[in-house]
Amino acid sequence: MHGSQNPSTICSLGRSDVLEAARRLAGQIVRTPTIRANLLEGEAGCELYLKAENLQHIGAFKARGALHAVGRLSEEARARGVITYSSGNHAQAVAMAARRFNIAATIAMPEDAPAVKVAGVRREGATIVIAGTTSDDRKQRAHEIAAETGATIIQPFDDDHVIAGQGTATLELLEDTRALGVKLDALLVPTGGGGVLAGACLAAADEDFPIYTVEPHGCDAMTRSLSRGERVAVQPGPTLGDGLKPVMVGERNFAIAKGRADSGVLVDDDDMGHALVGLLLRHKLLVEPSGAAGLAVALKRRLPGTPRRVGVMLTGGNVDVSLVSSLIAQHGERWSASG
Amino acid sequence: MHGSQNPSTICSLGRSDVLEAARRLAGQIVRTPTIRANLLEGEAGCELYLKAENLQHIGAFKARGALHAVGRLSEEARARGVITYSSGNHAQAVAMAARRFNIAATIAMPEDAPAVKVAGVRREGATIVIAGTTSDDRKQRAHEIAAETGATIIQPFDDDHVIAGQGTATLELLEDTRALGVKLDALLVPTGGGGVLAGACLAAADEDFPIYTVEPHGCDAMTRSLSRGERVAVQPGPTLGDGLKPVMVGERNFAIAKGRADSGVLVDDDDMGHALVGLLLRHKLLVEPSGAAGLAVALKRRLPGTPRRVGVMLTGGNVDVSLVSSLIAQHGERWSASG
Repeated sequence: MHGSQNPSTICSLGRSDVLEAARRLAGQIVRTPTIRANLLEGEAGCELYLKAENLQHIGAFKARGALHAVGRLSEEARARGVITYSSGNHAQAVAMAARRFNIAATIAMPEDAPAVKVAGVRREGATIVIAGTTSDDRKQRAHEIAAETGATIIQPFDDDHVIAGQGTATLELLEDTRALGVKLDALLVPTGGGGVLAGACLAAADEDFPIYTVEPHGCDAMTRSLSRGERVAVQPGPTLGDGLKPVMVGERNFAIAKGRADSGVLVDDDDMGHALVGLLLRHKLLVEPSGAAGLAVALKRRLPGTPRRVGVMLTGGNVDVSLVSSLIAQHGERWSASG
Repeated sequence: MHGSQNPSTICSLGRSDVLEAARRLAGQIVRTPTIRANLLEGEAGCELYLKAENLQHIGAFKARGALHAVGRLSEEARARGVITYSSGNHAQAVAMAARRFNIAATIAMPEDAPAVKVAGVRREGATIVIAGTTSDDRKQRAHEIAAETGATIIQPFDDDHVIAGQGTATLELLEDTRALGVKLDALLVPTGGGGVLAGACLAAADEDFPIYTVEPHGCDAMTRSLSRGERVAVQPGPTLGDGLKPVMVGERNFAIAKGRADSGVLVDDDDMGHALVGLLLRHKLLVEPSGAAGLAVALKRRLPGTPRRVGVMLTGGNVDVSLVSSLIAQHGERWSASG
């Protein structure tokens, strides 16, 4: 790792690492579109540029980091297979990456993982091991299996190659907006462990717009950590944003974010549901509640100042069909009524 | 109009007219992505390249033809405003085009137009006139208003500029697949009056793959016309594909299609619902039933031969929220169960 824009000793990643990841990932990932969400701009009071990572392989940005990390393993390491622990999209991403490289993958998933995400992992041909409900439970199980088999653990977020890979999504968003002659005033990033956030901070290291973390109420691990100046553990409360509830953000992720990200925009289930349904009906894109968190902030006009041009990361689209139905039932009328 | 690839005396449009339309529309329309639908390919038994016109302005390819046609009017004609008759997406498209050019638009819509499409027209600031339930009712009302006001009628499909504009969608699909090194073996085009079909025939005039019309059972005006060798009127039966039920296809559209299109792939509501929900859950894109008709044919493997690489026009995404709910209720389980 060569970058020099982050002064931390924990993590020396820089923008150049994201550029290198982009070169390695070219042709392996979907160059997802940046969607101008003009039909939601009246409500948001600003221009909206949405990076549609719900259209990425496996329906989430996680494909980037996983493909990059697995691609960086030596032939020898790859032959021993990979393993990870995840509640969802990272699990699917590692399973998909393993299939691409034709190697074995084992995934430790929680008992309460959304069925759609379990099905996605199964579809990619990985071995699933169910391990408790907390991230500690499945992390421990993954380490046990790794010790037995020699497989490499692909961390969900606290990993240099994963972070650099996730950063390519923001790199593309910046390329797309630049091509439109648009200079963003702010970027909204739904934040769990901090993978896509740290990647965004690196990719936009030379830009001067603020990058805002977005977390569910009660799952504000990054917000609290940034305000405290050190990582803080939380007991994540219930939220529809199943991708946004780590007990603690990653060490590398925090080190990168604290030099660049602005914290503290929180959303609740109602905000996410409203944004999810509005995006579906107006712009024909399905996201998961976590994926709608950034858009929710924009629609509720919760950003400081009055940014004119706002970039939003739509992190993923893997949502159980029953939840889609119930969110439409809750929020559909409101969007239909507003014409 | 200069093209020479169509020998008809009714219509002398050629591929060059589509290229010219593309030049004029550059920057005015969304360059929609071509989506590789790999998660549906197991069921389809072929590679799927979907042109996502549900992500176009106003949620349908109709934006192309309307912007092109209105843009071709003289300043003087534009000052007198435009008028059209349509059950839906063309209405929204003309309203949007008029707003872009800052001119007045009047839209004659049927009593039973989907609420989402009426709301879309209203959002664009056009004047709505409700006129009966048949296309003849609203056509007559539009002509009356045009006679009174001097406004120009923008035909929904039987118009040179509209056809050339719609052709740009296929032109982009061909550019995108070419960039991927992919040569299509077939193209599936949901067909109503024949605007996007005729445009596709022109855009792909130099290609050797078959272009298949897709129509709902009971609304097979183009299929019957192609098989009879002349335009045939039908009494369109009930269908969820509200964009695919003209009494008769356009004169120009038929003249172009008969030299290039292959006919006769029919779908029912169940086929369209199945495809709509599968596309939503697997690839996170919302289309309307008409927009899913082409994909439905691919998923049911109803194409002659065994094409390996199939292009599909996703024509639009404007569907009432209540219908989305009921289709998810009908078809969601099947897609969830299939993992």
